[in-house]
Order: sequence, then structure tokens, then C-alpha cells
Amino acid sequence: MGEQADPARVLEKIRIAEETRRSRFIGQEAITLSHGAGGKASFELIEGLIGPAFSNPLLDSLDDAAVIGLPQGLRLAFTTDSYTVSPLFFPGGNIGSLAVHGTVNDLAVSGAVPVALSAGFILEEGFSVTQLRAIVEAMALAARKIGVPIVTGDTKVVPKGKGDGIYINTAGVGIVRAVWHMGRDAVQPGDRVILSGSIGDHGVAVMIARQGLELEAEIESDTSPLHELAARLIDGVGSALHCMKDPTRGGVATTLNEVAQGSNCAIAVDEAAIPVRPEVNGACEILGLDPLTLANEGKLLAFVAPEAAEKALRILREHPLGADSVIIGEVEEGPAHMVYLRTILGGRRVLDMLVGDPLPRIC
Amino acid sequence: MGEQADPARVLEKIRIAEETRRSRFIGQEAITLSHGAGGKASFELIEGLIGPAFSNPLLDSLDDAAVIGLPQGLRLAFTTDSYTVSPLFFPGGNIGSLAVHGTVNDLAVSGAVPVALSAGFILEEGFSVTQLRAIVEAMALAARKIGVPIVTGDTKVVPKGKGDGIYINTAGVGIVRAVWHMGRDAVQPGDRVILSGSIGDHGVAVMIARQGLELEAEIESDTSPLHELAARLIDGVGSALHCMKDPTRGGVATTLNEVAQGSNCAIAVDEAAIPVRPEVNGACEILGLDPLTLANEGKLLAFVAPEAAEKALRILREHPLGADSVIIGEVEEGPAHMVYLRTILGGRRVLDMLVGDPLPRIC
Repeated sequence: MGEQADPARVLEKIRIAEETRRSRFIGQEAITLSHGAGGKASFELIEGLIGPAFSNPLLDSLDDAAVIGLPQGLRLAFTTDSYTVSPLFFPGGNIGSLAVHGTVNDLAVSGAVPVALSAGFILEEGFSVTQLRAIVEAMALAARKIGVPIVTGDTKVVPKGKGDGIYINTAGVGIVRAVWHMGRDAVQPGDRVILSGSIGDHGVAVMIARQGLELEAEIESDTSPLHELAARLIDGVGSALHCMKDPTRGGVATTLNEVAQGSNCAIAVDEAAIPVRPEVNGACEILGLDPLTLANEGKLLAFVAPEAAEKALRILREHPLGADSVIIGEVEEGPAHMVYLRTILGGRRVLDMLVGDPLPRIC
Repeated sequence: MGEQADPARVLEKIRIAEETRRSRFIGQEAITLSHGAGGKASFELIEGLIGPAFSNPLLDSLDDAAVIGLPQGLRLAFTTDSYTVSPLFFPGGNIGSLAVHGTVNDLAVSGAVPVALSAGFILEEGFSVTQLRAIVEAMALAARKIGVPIVTGDTKVVPKGKGDGIYINTAGVGIVRAVWHMGRDAVQPGDRVILSGSIGDHGVAVMIARQGLELEAEIESDTSPLHELAARLIDGVGSALHCMKDPTRGGVATTLNEVAQGSNCAIAVDEAAIPVRPEVNGACEILGLDPLTLANEGKLLAFVAPEAAEKALRILREHPLGADSVIIGEVEEGPAHMVYLRTILGGRRVLDMLVGDPLPRIC
């Protein structure tokens, strides 16, 4: 997993990179695939161009969903994602189930009960009606299982060669159940970092399907809805639950870095504690990928006060989707914005965000 | 505007077409551009495939926004649209301003005050950062003028040749202000049909920009936010305001047909009363288009009880965006689902939905 680096030197590099992020983005002339990969380049695009233009306190928090105060003390969670995954069908799911789970999960980790989804389709002229039907039925089934209706939608068709079969946008609204503030800025030194299961399944499943590889072991995407796991944590752990995230594009490495930045803390995780299926590990070695930067679509990371960590772990493990939950590390006071990996060999290396674009169109 | 037809015979044809709509769609194998044009084929796709799969009472109403009951008696309006307009920049606006106005207008005609928007970008690799900046700034400006924040977003990048520069999805949430039920099913015989200004401007402006035509008169898109017009009607007219719609894709003809179907009534409109700018009329003649089927992006249709119609007209005319408001017709008991045009020559012809696809990618 790369060579060891001097933390102080890397920290200085990160600081310089952050300071120059905006100005560097301004110098770019064209969008690249990296800008959509969920790692550093995506961050630059959002922080350097889109964020400043739209700037407002809700957007600026850059959390998975915006939380909007409504009259009568209600708090509405609101989120959106576009899905451009290639191929459209992969072991364990398709773009339709993904589009429902992904947006429900953004609501769930924001502490909200999903209330309704929208669905916007951009279809390419000539797209197969049979495939469209399969995708729409997968969305309907996923939504029905969760108990969230798809209440509004839109369909556009673009000429052949101006799309890629189908792109789906879903937005979601939910009512926030947690009465305390959750978010990256609520994460505190001492918090335990809990991961709800093995990582990299979705990224590897899509990559294998895309490249048409034949591997002995079938690897399925973990695409699943996290609303039940999240709700049980909220009910069982209460305000000791400081933050939840779902490590999708950019993987656990990118999500941990986002939390380290949003909390002004450091995070240390144990490489040996992070569950990776042997077949996923094997595929990663063949494909030259790091499971820590691969997308997951049915896993959550929870940041929990130390005294409640064991209880949180027990709650998660009681649910089929959280059976393999583990504590993978803890939050430290500093150096701020730093994520460390304590390696199996006893070393300590900086775990950076996804850089570049090993896996475009993973969701 | 086409030859006169025997209403009874046309009605029978419509009835047969409706009955076989689902089965006909099932027989199709591939998506065509017509499925995205907002007319009959779009209706078939939605009624024959997407609607039945997602079926629930909120979606089934097929209104511009879904209205969701929340705790404490709050009613949330929720809507989404994807924008694929080509070209991206046209006289009077660009895909960014359109993406904000279009979704705000869907909330507005649903009787809601816009509370927040989401923005999902699908960028094509190689897309110009300068153009992206101009589009994002137009969105930010439009949102700021309306006073609605863009609170959550997402950015995906697809490989060169798999997109067309930029596609934008916006979803919107709002709080419904009207305490009475508005919608197509609230429209009643006797209701006056009010149109807030001249039609076809957006459709013609985009068409001219797309084809690079040089015309003497510059025709600008009418892209504008309708939230103020709608709010004033709600406050001033009260429960005599039965329904509002914004006639976008498919134009006034398609919207009137949707209302006739949703209300089980007939609608009769006077051709002479419908305002069309002379330069729009001229361009339509050159391009072979019917202004009644062209998209508008800053006009509303209001269905108002007869005793309140003059007041509604006065209120609309007091606002710059409604200065040219007129009563264009009225709702009749039957024959159900029928829209008639009383022609300038004194005839009466059936006004059908947009059929086929004269104008793909108009929004």
C-alpha cells in the first residue's frame, strides 16, 4: 500500500495544496474525468468553482444532505445524486437499484427518515425499452422494500451519441430524527470510528463487469439501503453518535479525509482492522487498485463517543447489513486534517484522498 | 392551423388511442426522441412504463410537483427536472438560468413557496471550464434573485462522446401556501382560462439559436421565475384559484389537454385571444412550427372560478411578468378530455397535444 512518508512533510504538502486549490482550479481549461471521480479533483471543482458561486451556509457544510429548518421545528434533509455507472448492469444490482440506495443512504447518514424520492431520466435515443423496464422495475422494487415512494419525475431524451443509454438523477427528502447536531464538525478527539462491513465490493464488482473479466469468485456489489442501520444507531446511541457517512466515490480513504478536514482533527485507523474480502483483495491486486479508495454502496462509517462505541457496535452487528461491523480507529486531536493508517507491519503512513481517477463512473 | 375536423369522430379516435396506449408502448423496442418531447409519446412512456412501476397516489396525480403531507400539518411540494437544452446558450438565458427557473416554476404553480434547490451536473470530459463557470454563475444569480438557495449538489463526469457538454438536474422543495386543494382535478366547468402573456418565445429563441438563423428581430427566451405571480394569485384570489400550470414542453396545447384529461372536462379557447408576438409568428411560419405547441419558460396558465376571473387578471397584470395576461377561454362540461380552438375564421377545431417531435431538447 505505498511507501511510508514523513508525516510532517506530507502535512505541509497538504496545507500548501489546500491553500492553492482555488487558484489552481481557475487555471484549468477543461473538465477531466478526474473531476467526477469523487477524489481531490472533484473537491477542487466544487471548492474552486461551484461552491463559491452558490455559497450559502447549508451548501457550505458539504455534508451528504442539506438540513433545512422548516416551520414547527421540523428539519428537512434534502439531497441529490446523478448516476452514470458503467456498465448499467453489474453483479448485485444495476443503475436503478443504485440510484435508489445511494440517495436513501445520503438521507440515512444525515440522520433522516426518507420520506420521498424524485427520479429524473436522461435517455439516449435508441436505448432498449427492455433494459429501461428492467432498470425502472429495479428502482420500484428497491423503493418499495425501503418504503419510500418515488413521487415526482422527469424524462428527457437526447440524440444518439449524446448520452450513454441512461443517466438517472434521484433527489430525496427526509425528516431528520436526531434532535442533536450530527455532522463532520461534531466529530471530536477520542471518537471511535466504526465501519459497518467489508470494503471495496461495489468498486470491484463494477470494474470486473466493465472489463468483462472472468474471475473464479463472483464478487457482488454491496448496494443496499442503510436507513435501518442508521435509524437503529440514532435510537440506540443517542447524542453520542456524532457523525455518519457512507464511503461511496473515493472510498473510505476519501471519506475519512473529508471528516478529518470538517472536524479539524486527525484520524488514525488500523489497516489490519479494516475488513476486505479475500476475493476483493485478490481482484484489487490484479487490477492495481487500493480497496481503501474504492466505492462502497452499502456501508456506513460512524463516529461515536468512546463510551458508546461498544453499544453502537452491538447494535450494528444485530442487523444483517452490519454483521461484520468493526471499530477501525479513532479520532485524535491533531495534526488537524490528517488521516493515518497504522500498517500491518507496525508503521504509520498518511492515508490521502483518492488522487486521479482509477475508477470513473463507478456510481 | 390545420383543417377542421368532426369533433365526434376525433373524440372517438382519442378514446381508442387512450385505451391502447399502454399496449402500444409495450410493443416498442427502442426509445425515440419523441419520448422526450413532452407530447403524446412522452405521455405513453410515462403512462405505459414508468408510472405503473412506481405507482403511488402522489406520483399518479402527474402534477408539476408532488405535495407531501408532513407532521404539524405542513405540506411539502417536491419536484425535479433534467435540462438538456441545445444550444446551452440562447438569447435571453442559458441552461443554468433555465434549470433554476424551470424547477422554481413547477413549485410555484403547485402553490408552493420555493425553499431550496438541488443541482446535479453531468459534465462531458473536455467541457470548457469557462462555459461551466458562466452557467454556474447564471444559476447562482437566478437563485439569488428568487431568494432560494441551492443547498445540495452532485457532479459527475462522463467520457468524451458520452454526453453533450453539460446536463443539469435540479430538484426543488417548497412549502405549499394554498390551504385549499389545487390541481387538475379541481378544475370545474365555467372556470376561466387565463394566460399570463405571449407564447412561443422560448421555443422559437432556442430553435433560432440552434439553427444559427439570422432574423431581423431578436427573439429572446421568456425564461423567468413565476413564484411572485403565483403567490399574488394565491393571496388575492384564494380558493377561486383552482389550478395553475406552466406550459413548457409541448406548449399551451399540451398543457390544456393535460388539464382537460385531469379534470374530465372540455376546454374551449379563442385563437384570437392568444397573444403571440409578430416576430414569433413570423419565425413559426418560416420554421413550420405552431406556437401553441412551443415551450414557454415564463408563462402560467390559471384556471379560476368565473366570479374571480377579472380580479385574477388585474392581479397578474400588475406584475411585469403578467402585464399581457388575458382570458383565453373557459372550461366546459364536456365532451370530457376535449380541447377546442375557436378559430379566427369562426370555426371550431380540436386542439391536440403535441404529436411527434418538432422540437427536441428545448429545455
